Amino acid sequence: MTRDPHPWAASLASIHAQVWNCLVRGVHDRRAPVRHPALGTVTCDGMPSVRTVVLRSVDRPTACLDIHTDVHSAKVAELRARPHAALHVWDQSGHLQVRLDADVAILSGAEAAGTWARVPEASRTSYGSIPEPGQPIESALAYTKNSDPDAFAVLRLQVLTIDALHLGREHRRARFDRSNGWQGQWLAP
Amino acid sequence: MTRDPHPWAASLASIHAQVWNCLVRGVHDRRAPVRHPALGTVTCDGMPSVRTVVLRSVDRPTACLDIHTDVHSAKVAELRARPHAALHVWDQSGHLQVRLDADVAILSGAEAAGTWARVPEASRTSYGSIPEPGQPIESALAYTKNSDPDAFAVLRLQVLTIDALHLGREHRRARFDRSNGWQGQWLAP
Repeated sequence: MTRDPHPWAASLASIHAQVWNCLVRGVHDRRAPVRHPALGTVTCDGMPSVRTVVLRSVDRPTACLDIHTDVHSAKVAELRARPHAALHVWDQSGHLQVRLDADVAILSGAEAAGTWARVPEASRTSYGSIPEPGQPIESALAYTKNSDPDAFAVLRLQVLTIDALHLGREHRRARFDRSNGWQGQWLAP
Repeated sequence: MTRDPHPWAASLASIHAQVWNCLVRGVHDRRAPVRHPALGTVTCDGMPSVRTVVLRSVDRPTACLDIHTDVHSAKVAELRARPHAALHVWDQSGHLQVRLDADVAILSGAEAAGTWARVPEASRTSYGSIPEPGQPIESALAYTKNSDPDAFAVLRLQVLTIDALHLGREHRRARFDRSNGWQGQWLAP
């Protein structure tokens, strides 16, 4: 029998620690798949919507994650109407699927100015393109990139629940809730 | 100037073809990331939910995709209440994000029997585990796998819209709608 490559899957506490290690790695390692999770929202007419985002910061003590976006994007309109998101992460090296439910605060203007100041110059043109993201245009490149601090928003996800599924020799699934101090509960996978 | 690695990004028709090529590859290539898209639904209390699924079949003429699941999973309950899904695909080799909106039909029992007959014996134990997926259990492995044709369901996604975003030297984004024969429209990325 070969050594278990994922010994952390054995206990609730170590799975919980692994989830956060993996999220932190996503922020720091540009090539980690965890850097590009999928963010689920509900549209204004009640339909599900999912898109790739970039994980920009993780604060484990408060269980908060930050994502940056253009304030004119559809997801901001959706989150204004319904400030809840699902974040889906697949960690290939750990064979670990992480599903987070979160409340979302939208920070812009003065509230986001400190973060904006740390966005590299070259990245700032992702915020403020004309016309706004998702608008119909006449040809593929009929838009201009623009750097507009007023178009910059931070989506701050306050994590409420974590559902972690480890696909190992045997599958293990656990759920962690902010409301009970993240103590953890095994679930049937 | 190096040769463009993704010449298909130049026109609406060729992006549309590339989307379907990439989905078909997901069905046939076990290692393609496209094989494991993220499925977004809306929960019974109106919250977004996202999880990994396996793309089992793709029918381009009808724009239908099939996913297999346990009929007792939360997503089936969610889709019974609101039969709409978002499917999110990231094709690393093409630097292509594909977002699909779909109506979902849930086929089970006699309607799924033909498909069940083609599910390999070893895979059938993914359908019918006890207790049902997502139920709390006392310890990590306090569940039994089981092969139960009555627990098997096919989620048939009828694609309504495709939003394709190519991240190249310059970004290009296009939307395609079933309602107008998939003719395509460029969008600001």
